[in-house]
Amino acid sequence: MGARQAGRRDRLRAAAAERGLDAVLVTELHNVRYLTGFTGSNGALLLRTDPSPAHPDVFGTDGRYTTQAGTQVPDVELLVDRATATALAREAVRPRSGGPGAGRIGFEGHHVTVDGLRALESAVADAAGGQVPELTGLGRAVEALRAVKDDEEVDALRRACAIADAALAELAAEGALRPGRTELQVGRELDARMLAMGAEAPSFETIVATGANSAIPHHRPDGTELRAGDLLKLDFGATVDGYHSDMTRTLVLGHASDWQREVYDLVAAAQAAGRAALAPGADVVAVDAAARDVVAAAGHGEHFTHGLGHGVGLQIHEAPGIGPLGAGTLAAGMAVTVEPGVYLPGHGGVRIEDTLVVTDGEPELLTLTSKELLVL
Amino acid sequence: MGARQAGRRDRLRAAAAERGLDAVLVTELHNVRYLTGFTGSNGALLLRTDPSPAHPDVFGTDGRYTTQAGTQVPDVELLVDRATATALAREAVRPRSGGPGAGRIGFEGHHVTVDGLRALESAVADAAGGQVPELTGLGRAVEALRAVKDDEEVDALRRACAIADAALAELAAEGALRPGRTELQVGRELDARMLAMGAEAPSFETIVATGANSAIPHHRPDGTELRAGDLLKLDFGATVDGYHSDMTRTLVLGHASDWQREVYDLVAAAQAAGRAALAPGADVVAVDAAARDVVAAAGHGEHFTHGLGHGVGLQIHEAPGIGPLGAGTLAAGMAVTVEPGVYLPGHGGVRIEDTLVVTDGEPELLTLTSKELLVL
Repeated sequence: MGARQAGRRDRLRAAAAERGLDAVLVTELHNVRYLTGFTGSNGALLLRTDPSPAHPDVFGTDGRYTTQAGTQVPDVELLVDRATATALAREAVRPRSGGPGAGRIGFEGHHVTVDGLRALESAVADAAGGQVPELTGLGRAVEALRAVKDDEEVDALRRACAIADAALAELAAEGALRPGRTELQVGRELDARMLAMGAEAPSFETIVATGANSAIPHHRPDGTELRAGDLLKLDFGATVDGYHSDMTRTLVLGHASDWQREVYDLVAAAQAAGRAALAPGADVVAVDAAARDVVAAAGHGEHFTHGLGHGVGLQIHEAPGIGPLGAGTLAAGMAVTVEPGVYLPGHGGVRIEDTLVVTDGEPELLTLTSKELLVL
Repeated sequence: MGARQAGRRDRLRAAAAERGLDAVLVTELHNVRYLTGFTGSNGALLLRTDPSPAHPDVFGTDGRYTTQAGTQVPDVELLVDRATATALAREAVRPRSGGPGAGRIGFEGHHVTVDGLRALESAVADAAGGQVPELTGLGRAVEALRAVKDDEEVDALRRACAIADAALAELAAEGALRPGRTELQVGRELDARMLAMGAEAPSFETIVATGANSAIPHHRPDGTELRAGDLLKLDFGATVDGYHSDMTRTLVLGHASDWQREVYDLVAAAQAAGRAALAPGADVVAVDAAARDVVAAAGHGEHFTHGLGHGVGLQIHEAPGIGPLGAGTLAAGMAVTVEPGVYLPGHGGVRIEDTLVVTDGEPELLTLTSKELLVL
């Protein structure tokens, strides 16, 4: 583990040097985990562009996690302080025998609050003595690194996806998806099975939406009963080693009507087109359009009301965003979802979603459950 | 429901007027829920100190929640926009026929990020025309209101606590807490029972810590097996209508040794002292000290490594904090935990925690599971 994290820190170091920073203060907890391996709920990392024995990188956490930090982050100097970020900021700017402290420190402006920045500013002003150091936005530099997964991360995603596949297969095989059961019951059984199979947690609040509810993209499961002839949309995932899987399947109970088949086939075609567009260098807007154009050509453009997909990893939604308002291109190693949907308000909706990894060849499909229309 | 939320908005309006604000922008999601009843994942509230038909309060959310907002927030004007906060900020400052827009707007500096504030500043500069409005910190004004619960909130907490009580009672009655079972199994069964009893979710990641693990205040359950003669610490809760219960009980399996009984009796005495100190007007530092002094007098001061308790409600940790570094006094209607612990590294630890409501008389105990040392 440690070597991977050290490599990631070196890549961030290079990005920080390019921005003319002496040090960066990483406080976003997924980013901290990515760079150190630390899984606790309070931790931050001070990373120096040019570390030395007098001015090393420092990992900060509070007293609850002293032991855990020793095990998970053995290769970074530890600072235990309840006010983690301000303690590290003071550490960054403190002059030592090895030379002056950092003069220009990057912070995560998308994560540090306005009050938090005020506390950092006052901490560095107190600690630095004479010249007042500059705190400046680092941007989403760590998130950009995280978008491309290494083989260990892909393996965690693969295991997370396999658990989701197996949980759904069990539920279907045992007849748990039958008329009379409620959305809430089905959701809880999916969750319980994923946990029993070794998931740390569901990836997010499992979506179970039947009948007209399936037309609501993010319906929260309630007491609605499954009925013969209704669509049943399941959007769920498992977390393994901190990595999130994400899959949606839409089934029909009993018998599929013509309109249900028609919408299903349309969404399946759009999803296949989206998957086919995944390639290194592909513009995310073009990938979205590859699927969206299929839906629009069938006259359902207005019923596909969200983006095509998103990156997955330590967070369920992360870079890259794949949608009409996205920006940037794909790269090999990015793990993303492809999830077009068509929602007919008051009637029902279909969404089909996979988690895949972009490669130089065909994208690797991680969610293996069939995408044939399953009639139960 | 709507009337309660309207009353809360009026109390915030008064607090905003005292601070000389024309409007406040509430973006912290629990605060938004408290003030509007909205339970979705993206929403914000623009509240005017002096609302009028031309300049009303406005609730903002995105297109996924249009229907839900209509149901849950029928009494506040709705603005649907993906960039909720900036759209409301523009709305705040826009001059209308009824007069000029807000000149001084409070925002939540403990929640709005540095990048977020930059976006708000640029939005108001664009929309206001001539004079540039001032964005200024509102502080934790909504959190301060939330600290005192009304009867409906206390009722939700009571139901959440009752579920936790019942789940533990079932587990104990069915012999699920026996040697050979793992921490992880016990934790998942507690969670499953709470869900089956109607909890929306566990209040937090359930803590199950046995043997030496019980000396770790926030141990994450793992494959460690329960063994005869070991302590078993369970810290868990249920969420009902968004409100969180919080309870810790420490049991012994088989037979309690002398040191286990001694530590248990000490923590129980400290906990009773802490509960007895809960009263309107009591300083939170004094309440902490009431329990801490009991532990310290027995020579275990250094083994009680955290604060005595915290408020509970829409969040598992909220105002007031009850600890040596706390500030402020208690008031009738505050819902708080009292949870002293003594942790002997390498041996084991005991924590006993209740959720209670401060009243003008005796505090109301919401977690009713016995605090006698339970030997299973």
